[in-house]
Amino acid sequence: LLRARVTLASETFQETGSFKFRAAYNLASQVNERLILTASSGNFGQALAAACSMLGKESIVVMPHTSAQVKVDAVREYGGRVELTDVRVKSRAERLKELSEEYPGSYTASAYDDPLVIQGNASLGAELSASGRKFDCIVAPIGGGGLTSGLITGLRDLGDPTPVYGAEPLIANDAARSLREGHIIANDTEPQSIADGARTLSIGKHNWAVLREGIAGIIETPEENIKQAVRLLFMLANLKAEPTGALSLGAVLTQPDLFRDRSICCVISGGNVDPAVYRAILAE
Amino acid sequence: LLRARVTLASETFQETGSFKFRAAYNLASQVNERLILTASSGNFGQALAAACSMLGKESIVVMPHTSAQVKVDAVREYGGRVELTDVRVKSRAERLKELSEEYPGSYTASAYDDPLVIQGNASLGAELSASGRKFDCIVAPIGGGGLTSGLITGLRDLGDPTPVYGAEPLIANDAARSLREGHIIANDTEPQSIADGARTLSIGKHNWAVLREGIAGIIETPEENIKQAVRLLFMLANLKAEPTGALSLGAVLTQPDLFRDRSICCVISGGNVDPAVYRAILAE
Repeated sequence: LLRARVTLASETFQETGSFKFRAAYNLASQVNERLILTASSGNFGQALAAACSMLGKESIVVMPHTSAQVKVDAVREYGGRVELTDVRVKSRAERLKELSEEYPGSYTASAYDDPLVIQGNASLGAELSASGRKFDCIVAPIGGGGLTSGLITGLRDLGDPTPVYGAEPLIANDAARSLREGHIIANDTEPQSIADGARTLSIGKHNWAVLREGIAGIIETPEENIKQAVRLLFMLANLKAEPTGALSLGAVLTQPDLFRDRSICCVISGGNVDPAVYRAILAE
Repeated sequence: LLRARVTLASETFQETGSFKFRAAYNLASQVNERLILTASSGNFGQALAAACSMLGKESIVVMPHTSAQVKVDAVREYGGRVELTDVRVKSRAERLKELSEEYPGSYTASAYDDPLVIQGNASLGAELSASGRKFDCIVAPIGGGGLTSGLITGLRDLGDPTPVYGAEPLIANDAARSLREGHIIANDTEPQSIADGARTLSIGKHNWAVLREGIAGIIETPEENIKQAVRLLFMLANLKAEPTGALSLGAVLTQPDLFRDRSICCVISGGNVDPAVYRAILAE
C-alpha cells in the first residue's frame, strides 16, 4: 500500500500510554525537588503524576476547568493532584506561576522544553539505534519538538546518523515555518488539529537548538491523512493509536515519493484517545 | 479494578493478527501435501492462506457466500483462493468434501481439531512457560478447544503445572456442558455470540482428549462482560482486541472471586474485528 518497508515503534504500551513517560520519569528522578508542578491537559500530566508516584514524589497538574473528566480522573488515578483553572479568568501559565510562588521548594516542569525532557526522550533514540535494525529514516510526530530533539540526541550520542523527519499537522505547521524562516515562529492561537498533542504554540527553545540543524525535514500532514493513518493502523496493524501518534504514518501517506522503497521507522507516540473521537474517525 | 495482577499475553500482533497462525503454519509445514483446503470465515482462513504463501504452498478457503467482503479480501491478499458457497444450497462441509475429491492430492485442515493444530498452539504454552514469569493461572478463550488444549500441551511438555482455564461465551457454553457431562456435547445451531471465534458447534475430539482431564475449569461469560472487556482493554491497556480475544478478561470480570489477589495471565487471542462492530461496542 505504501510501497515502503514500514516498522512501527509503538509507545502506546509505554507506562501511561505515551512516550511522555520517558521525559517525565527522567525529569522527576533528576531534579532534587520533592514537588513538581506542570500544566498539561494531556499525556504529560498523566506521565508526570505516575513518575512522581513511582519515585515517592508529589505532583500538581494544572488543567483547564473544561478538561474532560476522564483526563482529570486519569491524573488523579496516577496519584497526581489536579488544579483546575478557569482559563477565561486565569491562564494556565498564570496559575502555574501562582502555585510556584505558593510552593517555593517546587520544580516547574515544561512538557517539552527542558534539557531533562530531551534527555528522557533520547532513550527512545538510543533503543532504536541499539535494536540493530537499520532504517533509512525515522519519522516521528512534532509538536513542541521534545520527541524529535530527543530522538536526534539519542541517535547522535551513539554515533548513529539515521535521518529523523518530523510529522506535523498542516494546520499547526509552526515547526515547518520555523525551519523555513530559520527562527522559531509561533502560532497565534492554539491550532485545532485532531492531533491534540501537536497543538503547541511553538517549538521549545532547547528543542530548536537541536532541530534547526539536526532534523532532516518536516512533513506538513493534512487532517485527512492523520485520520486515514489512524484507520490504517487499526485495520492493518491491530494498533490503537491516538491521532497525534498516527502523525508519522500520516506523513508517509502525505509524501509517498520521499519514502518509496525505503525502510522507514514510524514512531507511534501514544495511544490515549477518547473513545468518541476514535469511533468518529473509524466511521469516516 | 479487578483486584488481581493481570498480565496480557497478546496474540493481536501475531502474523495475520491472531493465534491461529501458530496452528496454520505448523500444519502447513508438517504435511506433505502442496495444496491445503479448509472451511473458515474467520482467522484460520487468513492464517492458513498466509502460512501456505510463506511455505510456497497453495490454499483454498471455503467461505459462506454471505461473508463480509473485507474477510474475503483478506484471505485473497494473503495469497489464498476463496471458494464461496451458498450455504442454503450446499454446506461448507459438503463443498469442502467436493473439493477434496476434485483435488486428490490435497490435505483438508480443520481449524481446530487436528493434532497438528494442538502442536502449533502448544508453542504459546511453551513461550509462556519459558518467559520465566510465574502465573497462578492462565485464562484463554475456548471455542473448538484448539487453543486451550495447545496451551496445556505446551506447558505440560515442559513440566509446567500452571492451571489453564477456558473462557467461553455463556450463550455458546457447549464446552462447559461437555465438561459437566463428561462427554462432548454439541450446540444444536451456531450460537450467535459476539465472540464469533467461539461459535463452533462443539469441542474437537483431539482437543477433548486433552481438556477432559487437563483443563482447570470453564468460565461461562455473559455477552455484556465480553463487551466490557473489549472496552477495558481499549481504555486501560491501549489494546485493540476482537470480542473473542477479550473473552479471557471477560471471564475474570465474571468470576472475580476465583481470581482475587492472584497473578493471572489472560491470553488475548486476536485483534481482527470489524470496525463497525468495534465502534458499536465502544459506544455502549
